[in-house]
Amino acid sequence: MPAPSPAAIAALKSALGDGGWTDDPAEIAPWLTEWRGRWTGHTPLMLTPRSTEQTAQAVRVCAEHGVAVTPQGGGTGLVGGQIPYGEVLLSMRRMRAVRDVTPLDDAMTVEAGVTLLKAQQAATTAGRRFPLSLAAEGTATIGGVISTNAGGTQVLRYGVMRDLVLGLEAVLPNGEIFNGLKRLRKDNTGYDLKQLLIGAEGTLGVVTAATLKLFPIMRSRATAVVGLESAAASIELLARAKAETGGGVEAFELMKRLGVGLAIRHIPGVREPLETTPDWYVLIELASGEPGAAESALERLLADAFEHGLITDAAIAQNEAQRAAFWKLREEQSAALKPEGGGWKHDVSVPVSRIADFLDEATAAVERFHPGVRVSAFGHVGDGNLHYDVLCPPGADVPAFLSRWAEGSQIVHDIVARYEGSISAEHGLGRLKTDEAKRYKSILEIETMRAIRQALDPRRIMNPAVLF
Amino acid sequence: MPAPSPAAIAALKSALGDGGWTDDPAEIAPWLTEWRGRWTGHTPLMLTPRSTEQTAQAVRVCAEHGVAVTPQGGGTGLVGGQIPYGEVLLSMRRMRAVRDVTPLDDAMTVEAGVTLLKAQQAATTAGRRFPLSLAAEGTATIGGVISTNAGGTQVLRYGVMRDLVLGLEAVLPNGEIFNGLKRLRKDNTGYDLKQLLIGAEGTLGVVTAATLKLFPIMRSRATAVVGLESAAASIELLARAKAETGGGVEAFELMKRLGVGLAIRHIPGVREPLETTPDWYVLIELASGEPGAAESALERLLADAFEHGLITDAAIAQNEAQRAAFWKLREEQSAALKPEGGGWKHDVSVPVSRIADFLDEATAAVERFHPGVRVSAFGHVGDGNLHYDVLCPPGADVPAFLSRWAEGSQIVHDIVARYEGSISAEHGLGRLKTDEAKRYKSILEIETMRAIRQALDPRRIMNPAVLF
Repeated sequence: MPAPSPAAIAALKSALGDGGWTDDPAEIAPWLTEWRGRWTGHTPLMLTPRSTEQTAQAVRVCAEHGVAVTPQGGGTGLVGGQIPYGEVLLSMRRMRAVRDVTPLDDAMTVEAGVTLLKAQQAATTAGRRFPLSLAAEGTATIGGVISTNAGGTQVLRYGVMRDLVLGLEAVLPNGEIFNGLKRLRKDNTGYDLKQLLIGAEGTLGVVTAATLKLFPIMRSRATAVVGLESAAASIELLARAKAETGGGVEAFELMKRLGVGLAIRHIPGVREPLETTPDWYVLIELASGEPGAAESALERLLADAFEHGLITDAAIAQNEAQRAAFWKLREEQSAALKPEGGGWKHDVSVPVSRIADFLDEATAAVERFHPGVRVSAFGHVGDGNLHYDVLCPPGADVPAFLSRWAEGSQIVHDIVARYEGSISAEHGLGRLKTDEAKRYKSILEIETMRAIRQALDPRRIMNPAVLF
Repeated sequence: MPAPSPAAIAALKSALGDGGWTDDPAEIAPWLTEWRGRWTGHTPLMLTPRSTEQTAQAVRVCAEHGVAVTPQGGGTGLVGGQIPYGEVLLSMRRMRAVRDVTPLDDAMTVEAGVTLLKAQQAATTAGRRFPLSLAAEGTATIGGVISTNAGGTQVLRYGVMRDLVLGLEAVLPNGEIFNGLKRLRKDNTGYDLKQLLIGAEGTLGVVTAATLKLFPIMRSRATAVVGLESAAASIELLARAKAETGGGVEAFELMKRLGVGLAIRHIPGVREPLETTPDWYVLIELASGEPGAAESALERLLADAFEHGLITDAAIAQNEAQRAAFWKLREEQSAALKPEGGGWKHDVSVPVSRIADFLDEATAAVERFHPGVRVSAFGHVGDGNLHYDVLCPPGADVPAFLSRWAEGSQIVHDIVARYEGSISAEHGLGRLKTDEAKRYKSILEIETMRAIRQALDPRRIMNPAVLF
């Protein structure tokens, strides 16, 4: 799209008023670079509305003048969807009110710029829990988390962000305000328009506020790290854990010995969790509404798993510090890889029942394609989501290795597709993966998405370079 | 729309082949009348495809010839959405294969014509549970349940149908097959198209199959009927029950003394559940993965509720027969009203925290509007959904009373709207409520829905008289 005209820029400045915009490159710069440094964009103007009405005015001006606009939340996205390349930057971070919390409805309404952490805290203050949890939660905002339909570690029990949104307020591409801030669990009065905005990566409008589902605070919680001989054993363990607890598994995270070893080597304070060093590890966390129930269920589960030969070793966290140490081991799996010289990263999902086969087949294929690579795989295996990273062979030429990323990824993604999986389980497509996704989506799907987008945003002003 | 041309009818017959269609009025008749007799439609042709490909061929012919088509499942809908008035009737009831059940994925794929009961049974056979449950489950089909985003009694814990669909296969209005039969819990690769089809009442395509979420079978279950002095006390009890069980409340159904008394009077085999006759009753059911846990949680909960003056009486089901009797009391609430001469029926939801205030205000308003009416209110109060029925004054002229239904309903619906509720919580809009819904939807919402519909179905062939 062409750069915004001086008239459009002036109209936007006037719509937002003093303090609601900046074109000072130094002020804008921090918001143009993705945190890993992989994307650095540019924009003529950054808007920071403080209200839904101001947001609507901004989008209305953009619609009138045909100005492209990129909404941004906390900026923690990993696929470049929040970085403008010439688009006006619409930063939602100043809309940060918690509008209300109604515990009897198990609901709260927060604005788009509230961080995930602050939202969790607002729920806790009211004696409830907002369960979505991910590494970037101190910075990621509710608007961003909704627009990317984020996942994280609690999906197994509570679902992805889509499952946690009761209502939405958004500014549509024509600048009008969609007020769908409902606290209802049942409402069948036409198409559920909020579903389109969730996960749309800012291409169908800008989320300004949301009503979120809250849950009871659990009264017992028990965490263990176990050792297993195979990834297949972890799937069987997961099924037993779900049956044993009636669905009370809150986290079930797989790790490979390679990543565990690298975390111990590279990350200060990370130690061996078990006495043995098995090929595979699972961090499992159970929670229950009844005091003591999670602990006893975990003990029963692990005793049964030993007896059936599913696990070879186990350590139950005896206190909060030990629990934190187990989680740190898991959370550092990604950082632990960096000192090893880089890797081809993948955020994929496959049906849970096929994880072990997928790992075997994908690993054999990338080893054939680039002998000497080391595969790290970790993630939320309870929901089928693996962070599947292919590391540079030790001592190899890193830039040469990284230059084969796209080709190597196609091998992995082709296998994912054959296993009826997703090439972007929780990060979205953004600028990074849209072209790759075209290889796997049917023409019908892409054309249907385009038809919907065209219907809602005929001038394609909303994040035009993102998605189809 | 005009009646289908002879050429279109011939093309449809040829596409489906022998046994795949009928134009015999006697054969079609049973599928033209809604079970309460409120709607009786007409059609020149009924199609009964046996495969997705046949369904696609049928819709393709309709698209080419501009023939309107009404999809139909089990025909148990309550708002006339499944009844054709001149449209070709596309009955999905012969597509009834359970395609696969994969317990390790907690997933199963069933065709649109499989009844809800058969789907539940397929899950149970595989050692899992499909939790959606409603009175018509022996007849209602998965395709219909998805297209109306049905609710029922287990929504509190497991959500509505939308929350239980992992993947969909559907024929879009252009006759192309959308294959979205995924078993994934996380997939962020563009707009989630299946969300549009869920609850679209057959206006955006025909669901041909779905992959559904399965859950563990619970190992303990405890059921009670309690007596309360007010509806407000039930809301406080619900909050305590959720906290006490960590979300293990499977059902929480409110009943008013009027409905309980009428069920005892009119329905053979229904008896007083309690020794007292309180103004309000709640049927509460807890379930847990741990043997014995539901029973002990229920005892703790009721003891605590007595102590805090929330309940005045309680009976815990001591065996399956007693549990069945409690559920029968609840399930007969609707039938118990019929011998009383008819009523104005409403399927509404409001935020749970506002149920008591809504009941007070709505009841006062309808009593002012039509002195002598009796209000029955029962339903899934755990999710805010009330079946709010206004009964004819005893001995009054029934037809005269029923002639004021629309006017009386507007009074109720206006109050629902003021309480930020929904005028159709779980039954949809169909032919019955679309006009009424226009009073409460914003122009933006209606125009956005129409734009999406226009984009997917430019000739408006799919269930054209239903929705906006």
